[in-house]
Amino acid sequence: MGTTKIKIVEVGPRDGLQNEKTILSTEEKFQFISLLCEAGISTIEVTSFVKPPAIPQMGDAVELFNMVNEKLGHLPVNFPCLVPNLQGYEKAKSLGVKEIALFTATSNTFTQKNVNATIDETFERMKEVALEAQKDKVRIRGYISTAYGCPYEGRMSIGALMDVTRRFMELGVYEVSIGDTIGVAVPGQVREYLKELKKEFSSSKLAMHFHDTRGMALTNILVSLEEGITTFDSSAGGLGGCPYAKGATGNVATEDVWYLMQSMGLETGISFEKLAAASQYILGRVNRNTESKFLKAYLNTGKV
Amino acid sequence: MGTTKIKIVEVGPRDGLQNEKTILSTEEKFQFISLLCEAGISTIEVTSFVKPPAIPQMGDAVELFNMVNEKLGHLPVNFPCLVPNLQGYEKAKSLGVKEIALFTATSNTFTQKNVNATIDETFERMKEVALEAQKDKVRIRGYISTAYGCPYEGRMSIGALMDVTRRFMELGVYEVSIGDTIGVAVPGQVREYLKELKKEFSSSKLAMHFHDTRGMALTNILVSLEEGITTFDSSAGGLGGCPYAKGATGNVATEDVWYLMQSMGLETGISFEKLAAASQYILGRVNRNTESKFLKAYLNTGKV
Repeated sequence: MGTTKIKIVEVGPRDGLQNEKTILSTEEKFQFISLLCEAGISTIEVTSFVKPPAIPQMGDAVELFNMVNEKLGHLPVNFPCLVPNLQGYEKAKSLGVKEIALFTATSNTFTQKNVNATIDETFERMKEVALEAQKDKVRIRGYISTAYGCPYEGRMSIGALMDVTRRFMELGVYEVSIGDTIGVAVPGQVREYLKELKKEFSSSKLAMHFHDTRGMALTNILVSLEEGITTFDSSAGGLGGCPYAKGATGNVATEDVWYLMQSMGLETGISFEKLAAASQYILGRVNRNTESKFLKAYLNTGKV
Repeated sequence: MGTTKIKIVEVGPRDGLQNEKTILSTEEKFQFISLLCEAGISTIEVTSFVKPPAIPQMGDAVELFNMVNEKLGHLPVNFPCLVPNLQGYEKAKSLGVKEIALFTATSNTFTQKNVNATIDETFERMKEVALEAQKDKVRIRGYISTAYGCPYEGRMSIGALMDVTRRFMELGVYEVSIGDTIGVAVPGQVREYLKELKKEFSSSKLAMHFHDTRGMALTNILVSLEEGITTFDSSAGGLGGCPYAKGATGNVATEDVWYLMQSMGLETGISFEKLAAASQYILGRVNRNTESKFLKAYLNTGKV
């Protein structure tokens, strides 16, 4: 009678901060990551090794990863980093990054606007990286953007998602994160798509990545749980979004995911009070309020 | 192959405005109700016949109901009014109110603080009203507050809820609205309580009334749908709460309920754009922003 373990992948420092206009110092980002570690989060996406001008907030990737690795590297925490190409991978590898995240989308228009490449071309780039990573025993996670809908192409088909998921699995990723980049997924669609995905892939290799743009993230997560998914991406306080997708405001808040899991007796290993402290710190730094109603209620009442 | 019909009970003009500090004119309230009618909502709770000083926002109950009855009474819309006692009932009846709502809670501490009576005493008062209403062929709806949790007594038992529901049914109500007054219900508890309720009562006689204080309203509604519930209380734009319960901010927004239902192919009879217009009107009058992420996304993008 073990309790079901839920894995939360904290994407606040990368997916979250990437969409915030206030550029933080490396020390501030480190402090945020350090507080997330204290809260008991076991996987924290640290940064992205893009070319520095591409995303200003990620301009200190080398310094930040070095600081995290030096001061927090002894902890039992995974610190994956996003890698866009072989160049980024080589840099990450040289710093001792042990896990990378590769990314594409189910929409060609989206990948064109995002990384100036077709989906096929992104897989060519990713294959180069994956071959090196496998030699180096660096773990690989795959991100699929626009899984349910695209800001340019509208609703995306399950066929496109199956295809991209299959190609990621062939690259040797340990997990694919199915991303609702612009927050248009609804429970019926999530259930339908998951039922198809599970015909071919183990639910243990699928993670769900929801944005709460239209308030549906928790209903989508509830349905995902019912379909056997146990890994969820989220960001502390609900930071984040996608700078290339209009209206894509906010990953689902880690606090919201925590509350839903806790209410169902599912174990996340997270200390809520310490998580809220990490969120309060970073929200203060980027000077905005949380979008999480649960975190707001906690901050108002002082009670979980 | 009929589409499942969902009944939405719009409680914004009563439960919503009752918790707003800005006192509106009768004309403004009438305008709000008129816009809600245009949006296609078929049940709109108009006001509450409490003693005028008790809740200042409800001080114009007579004038407002008269205006609604005169100008909108020809529409196929139900306009229930809250009635606290026989005195309030007599006033409502004299104006031609055709449906009343009676209310109590599962927590004695809550009813004491709210209406200065034990649960038993509230049923004595309500029985007097119900007997008259039945003679007059006035329909009766029952409200149960603190069904899942109470600000004073904490988590409330299913036994207390079963008992109060049973007593309401014995009064001859056509429907009981199960209220999560302070927004503490979670999906597991909702499912557990509904499974028990359904052993004794038809789901067609149960309505769900959620507040989105902790962001769980839509997950609770999703579970309620799965359990066969088809009637939901909500307030346009997410107005409302409970003035007696600290931190009880906001009924679930009618827009959020609409979006969830629409995404599942369930028919509400509501025109979303007109509903959003009603919400924008009333939010402007009470000078606050909506708490509904879906309505925010719509107002930002102009698209559903």
